[in-house]
Amino acid sequence: MDAELRGELVIIKDQKAAALHEKSHYGKFNQDELQLSPMEALYLQEKGKIEILDREKNGTPLSSDVMWEIVQNKGLLYKYIVFRDLRNRGYIVKTGFKYGSEFRLYERGKSPGDGHSDFVVKVVNEEQNISISNFSSYVRVAHGVKKKLLLAVVDDEQDITYYNVEWTRP
Amino acid sequence: MDAELRGELVIIKDQKAAALHEKSHYGKFNQDELQLSPMEALYLQEKGKIEILDREKNGTPLSSDVMWEIVQNKGLLYKYIVFRDLRNRGYIVKTGFKYGSEFRLYERGKSPGDGHSDFVVKVVNEEQNISISNFSSYVRVAHGVKKKLLLAVVDDEQDITYYNVEWTRP
Amino acid sequence: MDAELRGELVIIKDQKAAALHEKSHYGKFNQDELQLSPMEALYLQEKGKIEILDREKNGTPLSSDVMWEIVQNKGLLYKYIVFRDLRNRGYIVKTGFKYGSEFRLYERGKSPGDGHSDFVVKVVNEEQNISISNFSSYVRVAHGVKKKLLLAVVDDEQDITYYNVEWTRP
Amino acid sequence: MDAELRGELVIIKDQKAAALHEKSHYGKFNQDELQLSPMEALYLQEKGKIEILDREKNGTPLSSDVMWEIVQNKGLLYKYIVFRDLRNRGYIVKTGFKYGSEFRLYERGKSPGDGHSDFVVKVVNEEQNISISNFSSYVRVAHGVKKKLLLAVVDDEQDITYYNVEWTRP
Repeated sequence: MDAELRGELVIIKDQKAAALHEKSHYGKFNQDELQLSPMEALYLQEKGKIEILDREKNGTPLSSDVMWEIVQNKGLLYKYIVFRDLRNRGYIVKTGFKYGSEFRLYERGKSPGDGHSDFVVKVVNEEQNISISNFSSYVRVAHGVKKKLLLAVVDDEQDITYYNVEWTRP
Repeated sequence: MDAELRGELVIIKDQKAAALHEKSHYGKFNQDELQLSPMEALYLQEKGKIEILDREKNGTPLSSDVMWEIVQNKGLLYKYIVFRDLRNRGYIVKTGFKYGSEFRLYERGKSPGDGHSDFVVKVVNEEQNISISNFSSYVRVAHGVKKKLLLAVVDDEQDITYYNVEWTRP
Repeated sequence: MDAELRGELVIIKDQKAAALHEKSHYGKFNQDELQLSPMEALYLQEKGKIEILDREKNGTPLSSDVMWEIVQNKGLLYKYIVFRDLRNRGYIVKTGFKYGSEFRLYERGKSPGDGHSDFVVKVVNEEQNISISNFSSYVRVAHGVKKKLLLAVVDDEQDITYYNVEWTRP
Repeated sequence: MDAELRGELVIIKDQKAAALHEKSHYGKFNQDELQLSPMEALYLQEKGKIEILDREKNGTPLSSDVMWEIVQNKGLLYKYIVFRDLRNRGYIVKTGFKYGSEFRLYERGKSPGDGHSDFVVKVVNEEQNISISNFSSYVRVAHGVKKKLLLAVVDDEQDITYYNVEWTRP
């Protein structure tokens, strides 16, 4: 499927884009065009699902190097690594911004429309310190909306360790 | 029951001390005397189970203020607050040192002798930063011995929030 | 070899980068580009192995001052000093995150692929206090995976003292 | 064998005391009497090797409770716990004062006279923090006299965890 880089987003006008959106919940529809975030676009490009054409260069295909660069230059490296891993595991991955986290996840078969996500995902890298106060706030928000918090730690080798964190009464 | 502050410990010589040890797993027996840690002693004193006598003052009772001071001077304030709360909830609370944590817990009815503890408890306070690397280490030790990690956060009002933390594959 | 600072990482697209990765186990390959961590990049820059170009300034070389700043701003000063020293001694140095430590080491001739690392390395600086409880946790993790724990203490003059710490029965 | 509490020390005048000293290296000889430290005396009393008589009470035997009390009141509880454990394991245990530590150890069969001790032992309890600077100084002193440093950590249940710490070059 052909897509096109336009400013911050990657756009697909192909009618088949509807399936990408309805079945796999990529992007946002706006006036018959599907708008993908850079992470979504890079992921679909890496999977060979879309080809991204560069308008400014007469529509020649963008190499995935260039998409990587765009994602990295936005400081989304660790976030993308986790996004990719979770998509690979079959989750629908949407922004967790409203929950103060990076992602919210929908399990296989569920969808953002008809159900609740079960997880919010906080992404950190191994060099970071977490203040207990932030930690507490991530869990509180997740718990308040009845989701579980996944802490995803990306290490120096780009491996991810996941921790399930729940508020509890022992 | 009468107890006595002696050096690092509080000692009970009363024969009834055996029940405290055998049923509730307080202290360590040594030569017919029960040796309580300062936290155990303060807890039992606060509960009205023991009276701690001050030898140097002709055996007059020590106020719990003095025991609090001893516990705080050892830097055990947050640890004690969590200890007390967990004891109040019915757990047998023993040191978690060998697991790199503050406590290990035995559920109501189980005992350090005949079973395994289910939880190790790491105590932090809300002002702390926790390095992701230490966090990883706490979870790994707990996971390695098939226990759950409880992170107990003590806030400025001495309220405790508990988090259950588990290594997971989403 | 030319490299490029991009977001969190330093990227090498040169085909010769493959040798750096395969023989010396630097970085992670992604789509024909080698992604180096800031510490790896600074090390290779200090060794004169790579030149890091600054895109935003028409590809003029970044001075190592700038890379130092990046590493320090991430709070990696002590960690880098130990990284450099261990690389200088011939070790392959990879993250020790999953072991709750800073590094794991592979001896000369061995590699992350075909063997086990023998050491995990915990980095501290001379100003720190280390709680006995954390100390216990570091040793326990290392012991549990049959590795030796190296405690690397960086002093004010950036000299490093290494201690081998093992759980023992005397 | 009869002994007698006298001020800080426990004294044995029995001629058989020579064997205790020569074979097992307890105490110090002074003018035909063997002077035991309170820890040595308590240990030998617990083992049933000596009976300690109380001069002030017409030579009636002191209960081991009283010796425990003396040891505890001197703040030697943790030190005694380690002393006892090491003696039980067959080591000759002498003061490590000159090495800035609690004990120096001689292995079975060796003696303080004709050989070197192999270990110095630093005793801490689980509540303590160790400053890296003290840690470094313990190891340095031990290394300077070609001994190994044993760190003996006494936990709240009076169990001991031993760590072997050596200065090393990786």
